[in-house]
Amino acid sequence: MRLLRYGRPGKEKPGLLDEEGRIRDLSSVIPDIDPSQLSPKALRALAKIDPDSLPKVRGTPRIGVPVNGIRKFIGIGLNYADHAAESNLPVPTEPIIFMKAISCLSGPDDPIILPPGSKKTDWEVELGVVIGTRAQYVSEADALKYVAGYCVVNDISERNFQLERGSQWDKGKGCDTFGPVGPWLVTPDLIYDEQDLDLYLDLNGKRMQTGNTRTMVFTVAQLVSYVSQFMTLEPGDLIATGTPPGVGMARKRYLKPGDQLRLGIPGLGEQQQEVVAYKRT
Amino acid sequence: MRLLRYGRPGKEKPGLLDEEGRIRDLSSVIPDIDPSQLSPKALRALAKIDPDSLPKVRGTPRIGVPVNGIRKFIGIGLNYADHAAESNLPVPTEPIIFMKAISCLSGPDDPIILPPGSKKTDWEVELGVVIGTRAQYVSEADALKYVAGYCVVNDISERNFQLERGSQWDKGKGCDTFGPVGPWLVTPDLIYDEQDLDLYLDLNGKRMQTGNTRTMVFTVAQLVSYVSQFMTLEPGDLIATGTPPGVGMARKRYLKPGDQLRLGIPGLGEQQQEVVAYKRT
Repeated sequence: MRLLRYGRPGKEKPGLLDEEGRIRDLSSVIPDIDPSQLSPKALRALAKIDPDSLPKVRGTPRIGVPVNGIRKFIGIGLNYADHAAESNLPVPTEPIIFMKAISCLSGPDDPIILPPGSKKTDWEVELGVVIGTRAQYVSEADALKYVAGYCVVNDISERNFQLERGSQWDKGKGCDTFGPVGPWLVTPDLIYDEQDLDLYLDLNGKRMQTGNTRTMVFTVAQLVSYVSQFMTLEPGDLIATGTPPGVGMARKRYLKPGDQLRLGIPGLGEQQQEVVAYKRT
Repeated sequence: MRLLRYGRPGKEKPGLLDEEGRIRDLSSVIPDIDPSQLSPKALRALAKIDPDSLPKVRGTPRIGVPVNGIRKFIGIGLNYADHAAESNLPVPTEPIIFMKAISCLSGPDDPIILPPGSKKTDWEVELGVVIGTRAQYVSEADALKYVAGYCVVNDISERNFQLERGSQWDKGKGCDTFGPVGPWLVTPDLIYDEQDLDLYLDLNGKRMQTGNTRTMVFTVAQLVSYVSQFMTLEPGDLIATGTPPGVGMARKRYLKPGDQLRLGIPGLGEQQQEVVAYKRT
């Protein structure tokens, strides 16, 4: 299934994509796509529904974050060797864990707001992993059983805040709108191999990032197992698994108002964001 | 007011302390103490209630985290100059922000579980600041208006995970039970000066940490303002403002099963925790 949430911010309804790629309204079946809907049992029940039995959604509504009520947004640093090299940082010997403030979560096509004083806001296309079942000290062999699905994440990062304002990265990872997620939560049955997914990102129509999850330093299974040694993963928790090379920091090109980003993972959908200046509301 | 939540984990009821320090049941007035109850207006409404009109709670129930539905648990690093010195780290020129996984939240007297493989689990008594009103880019002069109240936090930290397993501290800050909070959320009207609060922590009856918030490098107002430049603070968000000297890392004494911690801030209450080994459930 390709699950999604559509509608105005804070008023999203649950939906799924049918075979033709049209949105079908799930709100007669479940109140929302939230952690309680991500267990294997709940997902099996949803998978039994014939999409043709659900109302078609008209027009092209805004798409929200595909899961409501995410409690942890975990990032993995330098998980592609070639990205570590372009960052002039060593390839990690074990995964680097940081955290994105969940107030940064944003729809896949919502604008990216440059924070006041930002000079180094950067892009990072990533594979997102959504947890379906509580996971604590799970083995690598079992780890994928705890995954509800996959999604595209843009791990927007302000490099000055992240790297030049103290030792801890979180400061540059959690500004509002720094976490576009979606458009879809795609269940594992639709993913032939999570370690063979292409990733791409274009800035103003020009390809900036190209990668494939096969060059990850640590696999998805390794990451889920590893993170679960340090914190209990709960349904809805989201892990952004690191970015391939081609980020702005390596190109000395950071985001400016008016920039257009397009990024995606074939099978998981595409995001499009316009970059805008912050305006006090 | 001294607000609290009492009862079994996940089944806590809202309460408040009366003049004699007895728990009064608030559950006929509000369903829970959650972010929606932390606005100035909601707190004013609660303050109008005569505690004597509320039922007394019998016995000595378990106390939970005083706010349900916390979304962000933010830590500030090295915010006491003498603690930075004992850590052999420079006094920061601006606040260090890290994040604790919210799955680590724990009642003030709940046991602290040593994670498997832990050898350097450490204590840190801290002043916790709970946000009452959404705060984005707020000035230092205005910052305290956004605070709903204060509480005691034990920012439990596994030093090996935090400092020797990669560059980012979050790995050692968010294990289950690493965030005892409470017993009470104390509203600012009961705090004469948030920059003149004593802190203490005893291990097995022996004083380990002694401090006062007057020696913070960055004040509470500065911290709330500063953090709000990097992420939007929402009602219920919790900032642990750093620890005074005396942690185990400086003493080469880490927590072991059977250890007893007692820590507090006069006026904000006291926590007592037993340290236990992890047992697979």
